[in-house]
Amino acid sequence: MSNERLIYLPLGGAGEIGMNAYVYGYGAPGKERLIVVDLGVTFPDMDGTPGVDLILPDISWLKERREQIEAIFITHGHEDHIGAVGHYWDALRAPILARKFTGALARRKLDEHGAPDTALRIVEAWPETVTFGPFTVGFVPISHSIPESAGLVIDTPKGRVVHSGDFKIDETPIVGEPFDRALWAEIAKPGVRALICDSTNVFSPEPGRSEATLSDSIETFMQEATGMVVATTFASNVARLKTLATAAERAGRSVCLLGRAMRRMVEVGTETGLLDGFPSTISPEDVLDMPRQNVLLLVTGSQGERRAASAQLANGKYMGLTLTEGDTFLFSSKTIPGNERGVIRIMNQLSEMGVDIVDDDGGKYHVSGHANRPDLEEMHAIIRPAMMIPMHGEHRHLRKHARIAEEAGLPSIVAVNGMMIDLSGNRPSVAEYIETGRTYIDGTVQIGALDGIVRDRIKMALNGHMVVTLILDENDQPLGEPWVELAGLPETGISNAALVDVIEEDLGQFVNRADRKTLRSEEKLDHELRRIARNSAQSEIGKKPEVTVVVSRLS
Amino acid sequence: MSNERLIYLPLGGAGEIGMNAYVYGYGAPGKERLIVVDLGVTFPDMDGTPGVDLILPDISWLKERREQIEAIFITHGHEDHIGAVGHYWDALRAPILARKFTGALARRKLDEHGAPDTALRIVEAWPETVTFGPFTVGFVPISHSIPESAGLVIDTPKGRVVHSGDFKIDETPIVGEPFDRALWAEIAKPGVRALICDSTNVFSPEPGRSEATLSDSIETFMQEATGMVVATTFASNVARLKTLATAAERAGRSVCLLGRAMRRMVEVGTETGLLDGFPSTISPEDVLDMPRQNVLLLVTGSQGERRAASAQLANGKYMGLTLTEGDTFLFSSKTIPGNERGVIRIMNQLSEMGVDIVDDDGGKYHVSGHANRPDLEEMHAIIRPAMMIPMHGEHRHLRKHARIAEEAGLPSIVAVNGMMIDLSGNRPSVAEYIETGRTYIDGTVQIGALDGIVRDRIKMALNGHMVVTLILDENDQPLGEPWVELAGLPETGISNAALVDVIEEDLGQFVNRADRKTLRSEEKLDHELRRIARNSAQSEIGKKPEVTVVVSRLS
Repeated sequence: MSNERLIYLPLGGAGEIGMNAYVYGYGAPGKERLIVVDLGVTFPDMDGTPGVDLILPDISWLKERREQIEAIFITHGHEDHIGAVGHYWDALRAPILARKFTGALARRKLDEHGAPDTALRIVEAWPETVTFGPFTVGFVPISHSIPESAGLVIDTPKGRVVHSGDFKIDETPIVGEPFDRALWAEIAKPGVRALICDSTNVFSPEPGRSEATLSDSIETFMQEATGMVVATTFASNVARLKTLATAAERAGRSVCLLGRAMRRMVEVGTETGLLDGFPSTISPEDVLDMPRQNVLLLVTGSQGERRAASAQLANGKYMGLTLTEGDTFLFSSKTIPGNERGVIRIMNQLSEMGVDIVDDDGGKYHVSGHANRPDLEEMHAIIRPAMMIPMHGEHRHLRKHARIAEEAGLPSIVAVNGMMIDLSGNRPSVAEYIETGRTYIDGTVQIGALDGIVRDRIKMALNGHMVVTLILDENDQPLGEPWVELAGLPETGISNAALVDVIEEDLGQFVNRADRKTLRSEEKLDHELRRIARNSAQSEIGKKPEVTVVVSRLS
Repeated sequence: MSNERLIYLPLGGAGEIGMNAYVYGYGAPGKERLIVVDLGVTFPDMDGTPGVDLILPDISWLKERREQIEAIFITHGHEDHIGAVGHYWDALRAPILARKFTGALARRKLDEHGAPDTALRIVEAWPETVTFGPFTVGFVPISHSIPESAGLVIDTPKGRVVHSGDFKIDETPIVGEPFDRALWAEIAKPGVRALICDSTNVFSPEPGRSEATLSDSIETFMQEATGMVVATTFASNVARLKTLATAAERAGRSVCLLGRAMRRMVEVGTETGLLDGFPSTISPEDVLDMPRQNVLLLVTGSQGERRAASAQLANGKYMGLTLTEGDTFLFSSKTIPGNERGVIRIMNQLSEMGVDIVDDDGGKYHVSGHANRPDLEEMHAIIRPAMMIPMHGEHRHLRKHARIAEEAGLPSIVAVNGMMIDLSGNRPSVAEYIETGRTYIDGTVQIGALDGIVRDRIKMALNGHMVVTLILDENDQPLGEPWVELAGLPETGISNAALVDVIEEDLGQFVNRADRKTLRSEEKLDHELRRIARNSAQSEIGKKPEVTVVVSRLS
């Protein structure tokens, strides 16, 4: 028994915000029984992942140990925690456990990937627990920006681990359970070996604010707005939806939901009983018959997503609805770093329509769902663990969070994706480094981030593309001249002649001079045609395009 | 005379932040004499302009009226006001006027494009004026985040126009002239027909802060830092450079400048006498011989630019220098919306090295160079113009600024790029809409934003690229099978066969079945090969790639 160990291994979410996927293991080294906590996704962007549809954690390490996996626990229903359960169901085939609301969201994803009903098991909140191998796990309600979030209490033969999940300290969260200090203190009493703790807001110096602090300002806003009001927020922020819809109703406005995620969340919130008292909603067709000042559109796309309802309304029309002078658009949200361009694009399009834009405005219309620095310190103090491992954050967040802990005398370590940490000793220590990374969903295919496919796309976007074709006869003699086709390149360069003509001329001269040996060698010919075409382009347009060479030999 | 008019025409900067280029005209409609105010650039990004090197205003309208242009006035040396003077020198050939510091920067750009010495004329500050045709123009010192910024006083037969340029109200700007209320009030006295006014900070509700308010916190920061300090800010913010360098010197640190723009700005600042008292600097080689706590590196790249000194230091090494645990990196800057990803990337790389990162931290280490809302209102009140036209801002900024003016009883209009405004009447009115846009510097070539070249690159980045080649003999009969080459696409799809094989198989079947008429028609053959290849890819990988079809006919 003495060589058994308790390990923690982040495969996603540690060194980044998003794509959460954590593994805990207990047993003899290499033979640990494993549980997975969260299987999230992250989103592509034009900078680094053009054309990619979705980014998933690389779970090769888990796939090779499928027999060791006991279960998968999902802390809450945000895409960066739940988004990959469907995609990876078939690869892992371990039972998936979640609370009711989270489970209802997981169910839809599992259905899309043909998983059976038995794949998912709904768990009641703490004090109920479930036991899988050496792990006894309880879902402890914790406040966050989506209902029924849970921190996990994971009991093992080496003691208790608390995995905070994403959380904030909110005693009046509008929907769902308030943060319960007494309950967490009770859980801490027997002693906690390790707290694995959310780090995303570690740089926010003030204590976090409650969801309930927004009610008054949103109420006033709805009363004072004159034309149609459009409000956007994360669809999963069910509490916010309720605050917005209730304030609208009191201001004599009927609520219309736009966007698939918005309708789905209200549907799931209603079917799980969390949204009792949510105003009844009207359809887009109904909206057309109503005075504008009697309508609230609650829409997706707070982050400027191109296909969401916000972007489509800003483009002109969505579901028959158009915005106009005198309407007001409320961003009840914060722009996630990296999404600024998309959000600003929408704001300017709305401005062109004469729509007034109201954004967060110093916290009147949005609060964060994560614990700020003082709240993290409070959580450390409540749990009083023997060690604290920061999770869910970029490197700088993890490092800052670890330092705060160390400065308070709490052993810590910066553990990024792929670092397997041994939690068995007095201090966390690195047990192993695991090869890990990202998997892309590209169209309908899963591709590896390092396959070079996306790198080639980026190169074409930066440099343009050129096709060079050459036909050789049975005697390896050129049949006609080399032929050039361009894509994403200017038609003329400095010489003012057509760029294709200049390049074809250079290639033609080479082919005419080339000796038999060169013309016979696939490799040499390819190399030379490419080199000459690129140099020719460089001197004409100052760019070296990507080149595809196609040499056809008649035989 | 009565049909002569005074017009204002933004060609860049109105409806965007950056790429400033404004035209004023006076004369009979269509025959106006023209002056240009500022010729700036804006910067490309992967989202919309991959592979582009620089973005310039489209000056076709000006080129067609070259004979009507009297002169080009540059208000200050920021790239978004001065960046295109070199590129467009040859196209416009009008005298360029600027104050000494701005002129020294313009000189370098003009030299790179072979313009003669006479192209540039240095002008002293107001009350000196210069007269070109119907315009008498004075450069009035105004505070901003670069030395010797000027607002322009433009006297015309229809009265006085004040073009604010970029500005803030700063009475203690560290370097250069303080904002001078009395001087501006004096200028306003004879009556101002129109104020054309900076709008970038119209959404900032508090009065702006002076550059001098940073001195104490920067001083304290330099004293308290232990290892090497690296500080980044806009190189053109010469006042900030001075504050940072002086504070470093007092803390026993020698200053080393890294990055071309940083060295150039200090050089120009010194040669124009603005940087008297700037500490003498040391070379990167000198740094290697010094204790870390005695060094300040002043570096370019506050916006995360990939090739700048910041990014290179974060990547590991620059000019022989490396950062390490215990060093501190200060961002004495604000991240411009859209640049977050690049900046965050650098912060995390530094975090991995153990470098402490200090950012703006609630305004301790950075102030904006633009007038906030109350400052804009103060400027309106000082100038008391008959009308106010907001310039330099996105649509939402211009709209907000115009509304503030209108609410204070000041006639205004939202004038975006291409809207020619008649300033001759009691209210600003639209005289004409001009076709305008953007010109890209792509490698060494100028291309139009609407040429479709960049659009094709974006499509390849999103969808990948495929080449289909087919050879036909003298009788239009296929010689062998169609051949497929892929770029930026996965090698296999759902059938687990090689993607090229599947597509070639589908194309081969089509070619074998195709009738003579199809095989003879260039257009039909191209259309069908493309369609089949795309559909085949769609069913295999869920993506329709961009396709280049090359049909070769032997004859």
